[in-house]
Amino acid sequence: MAAFLGYSPSQWVLLCHRIPRLDFGLESRGNTFQPEVWEYQQTLLVLSSLSALCLLLSLLGVSSSLIGWCCRRRGNHEEVDDSDDDDECDDVTGGHRLCCVTWGTVGAVVICCAAIGIGFYGNSEANDGMYQMTYSLATANHTLSSIDILVSDTVSLLGLAVSDQLTRLEELLSRRDDLIIVARNARRQAEAVIDLLSNLPLQATPPLSAAQLTTQGNYTAENQTESAVTVDWAAQRVGSLEEYRWLSYILLLLLDLLICLFILLALAKETRWLLVLMSSLSWLALFLSWGSLGLETATAVALSDFCVDPDTYILNTTQLDLGVRQDVLEYYLICNKGMRSPFQQRLTQSQRALSNIHAQLTGLEAMAIPQFPQAEKSLSELQQVLNVTEGNFQQLVALLNCRALNKDYLDAIKGLCYDGMEGVLYLSLFSFLSALSFSSLLCTLPRAWDQFHSDSGDYDDSDDDSEDPFGSHQARRQMPTSRAGPSGVLPG
Amino acid sequence: MAAFLGYSPSQWVLLCHRIPRLDFGLESRGNTFQPEVWEYQQTLLVLSSLSALCLLLSLLGVSSSLIGWCCRRRGNHEEVDDSDDDDECDDVTGGHRLCCVTWGTVGAVVICCAAIGIGFYGNSEANDGMYQMTYSLATANHTLSSIDILVSDTVSLLGLAVSDQLTRLEELLSRRDDLIIVARNARRQAEAVIDLLSNLPLQATPPLSAAQLTTQGNYTAENQTESAVTVDWAAQRVGSLEEYRWLSYILLLLLDLLICLFILLALAKETRWLLVLMSSLSWLALFLSWGSLGLETATAVALSDFCVDPDTYILNTTQLDLGVRQDVLEYYLICNKGMRSPFQQRLTQSQRALSNIHAQLTGLEAMAIPQFPQAEKSLSELQQVLNVTEGNFQQLVALLNCRALNKDYLDAIKGLCYDGMEGVLYLSLFSFLSALSFSSLLCTLPRAWDQFHSDSGDYDDSDDDSEDPFGSHQARRQMPTSRAGPSGVLPG
Repeated sequence: MAAFLGYSPSQWVLLCHRIPRLDFGLESRGNTFQPEVWEYQQTLLVLSSLSALCLLLSLLGVSSSLIGWCCRRRGNHEEVDDSDDDDECDDVTGGHRLCCVTWGTVGAVVICCAAIGIGFYGNSEANDGMYQMTYSLATANHTLSSIDILVSDTVSLLGLAVSDQLTRLEELLSRRDDLIIVARNARRQAEAVIDLLSNLPLQATPPLSAAQLTTQGNYTAENQTESAVTVDWAAQRVGSLEEYRWLSYILLLLLDLLICLFILLALAKETRWLLVLMSSLSWLALFLSWGSLGLETATAVALSDFCVDPDTYILNTTQLDLGVRQDVLEYYLICNKGMRSPFQQRLTQSQRALSNIHAQLTGLEAMAIPQFPQAEKSLSELQQVLNVTEGNFQQLVALLNCRALNKDYLDAIKGLCYDGMEGVLYLSLFSFLSALSFSSLLCTLPRAWDQFHSDSGDYDDSDDDSEDPFGSHQARRQMPTSRAGPSGVLPG
Repeated sequence: MAAFLGYSPSQWVLLCHRIPRLDFGLESRGNTFQPEVWEYQQTLLVLSSLSALCLLLSLLGVSSSLIGWCCRRRGNHEEVDDSDDDDECDDVTGGHRLCCVTWGTVGAVVICCAAIGIGFYGNSEANDGMYQMTYSLATANHTLSSIDILVSDTVSLLGLAVSDQLTRLEELLSRRDDLIIVARNARRQAEAVIDLLSNLPLQATPPLSAAQLTTQGNYTAENQTESAVTVDWAAQRVGSLEEYRWLSYILLLLLDLLICLFILLALAKETRWLLVLMSSLSWLALFLSWGSLGLETATAVALSDFCVDPDTYILNTTQLDLGVRQDVLEYYLICNKGMRSPFQQRLTQSQRALSNIHAQLTGLEAMAIPQFPQAEKSLSELQQVLNVTEGNFQQLVALLNCRALNKDYLDAIKGLCYDGMEGVLYLSLFSFLSALSFSSLLCTLPRAWDQFHSDSGDYDDSDDDSEDPFGSHQARRQMPTSRAGPSGVLPG
């Protein structure tokens, strides 16, 4: 059960974390997550630049293929002018070449479509992970702000009771020294509780003193919400960034999908302008694919470095940034059963003080009311405040306990490191496959252009047994004389 | 934030909940979720039977189409024997018919593939929802069993302290009446705490009395885990059922996908035995599709009825089944800020008793140790036990607070009613679309068979300008004389 509820890095995280790191001087570097250190950034940039290298290689490949095609094309034109008698042999080799071209194009489009499917899945997976993270951060923020509100409510309630009812009670009982001592004792205990509460080590900002609070009578929460604002800020930031990321990938995926579909359409309908347009868009898609692969590589590797041991990184940075106490952070991030709460002593003391106040007020009730019946109202009001405070206190104890916040933290980490990581890896696979298929498309598309050219009725030795059952027969049957209307195999 | 963290029924749930319900006598019935009531079950069965009706209709349609095909086929054969001179006219109408058949088949396969995609998405969505539900139930079970363990630990620790150290202390102090009164007071308070803790209203089973506990010295948790076992049982049951559901859908989806692909292959390669096999499998798929649609309709409607107001249903049934108190259940299911915890009074009393014991022990330390130095050990041990108990108490207060369990409950409901409901609706769409496409495939496949027959080289007026660029040309070029090797348009 504990393993089911806890977090341990996935196999993918461990695998990516083991990738060796080199800096710009090609020296080996550590793989500890330090996004603010220049050496670490260098290792990520080096890993990203691998995809720039791949882009360069694919550009070289495509351009050499294009140059080869141009040369062969010119050669073919001259040959056609020279000799017409060795048609049979030329037909067989040319047919073989064209067959390869067609199959290459179709294969590339199919691989690209599969890659797009993987990309959609990866994008949705990454989005799920980020949503879970945002949701968990929002829940944690809700808990933190609830703590702040509860503390401020309780402190202002107690402060008001001390400055109002208890002062009135003291004035009433001023004639009896023994009673006034009990009332003063109660005041001292109440002030101690206010002091303990307003100095909870959760808050980073310097808290107000009990004296200030009792004189002010009310307590503002604004000073205490710094940590809450930070978590909230992180949740909102992650949420809005994720929206843009998701949308960009959806647009990229749709662009790729449209290019693939229109390439098939252009081939089926033999539309040259569409093929030219799609070829130029394929260049764009090629650049975008390798570019996104570079980004995804860096993201996956950085994410794996973070996810291998998120506690340590968060412990260090949050402590530096917010000045939150180390033991408080450890308590919330680790939350072992054996761990002692950093609030326990403070809460126990407050609880004991509240119990003492209760006992003292009960004693006062028994002793003072027969002599000072007008004290009854103040005493019952104080008892009421005490009951509310004890209820609030139990809520505060519940909120300060590490379980809820730790679960939110674990859920956020799981969202980022399980679903998020998986999504990034799927997206990398998409980028890689689509880059490969666009490279091969850019090699084969000009040859398909040739095919359009060679299609204009220069052979009639068609073998009817090897026909496709989709369309061409019927199309031919329907318009046996028309040569104008283009009709291909692909429905659409 | 509260709306973000809370649960409100989705539009789909409200829409499905509004579907009118009829029983077997076609009388209108209510749409309150009552799975154990026969009238309610009838309304679900009536809704399911709609898909049986659809199955009947599609069977009628397919069989009438088949009968029509048989008659027309026989007629055609007779006509072919009769007249050979009106070839041109027959070719045009026949070609048009065959074109429709081919396009119908391809369209049906494409719709089926789209449906399969939707089905995969819906299945994964439903699985996500069920996983979230199982995970949340497991977390809730973890919390409940933690409460049981903590209560049993605390009670046995206090019981041991009372029966061991406190008894020894009383024996030591037996000579001083004033001190023995303080010790007895502490014992009474400790027994009161044990009583309060072991009678927490969370447990459904009759709790043990304090006297039993103090004499036994230790406290067994087995009696208290009934509610925990129930949640655990639910989590495991949901998990295992979901595994089977997921697997069945995956198998169904793969079956449909294979049928679609092999139909395309059979058409491309003109393989008759494959077409016959796939036609019979299509019958199976048709039955399975309508059957699963019936199941999904009932599930979606029942789920919507549950999801419109899950609190009320759970409040009623859990109370009946487990005998858990109404206010305790309401506290956990609703968990408003203004709600008073049913444990608050009990916990406050225990807390006050613990504070009193602490005060009494401190008093004893001051008074007794100068006269009875051998009491120091017992006293310090008692203080230690008291500290541990107060720490446990804070944890117990945190665990008993409604926030954690309510969040688990809300997460489980969200998993079921957002993702689960969405998944079921997508699966319904898949079943409907695949049923439609298999119906139309069963109508068109026999006509495709005809096409194979008519393909055997009975026309040579092929118009090369309207050729497809994929394969047929090249295949013809490669084997200009071979008539044996079949080669279609579809790569594969």
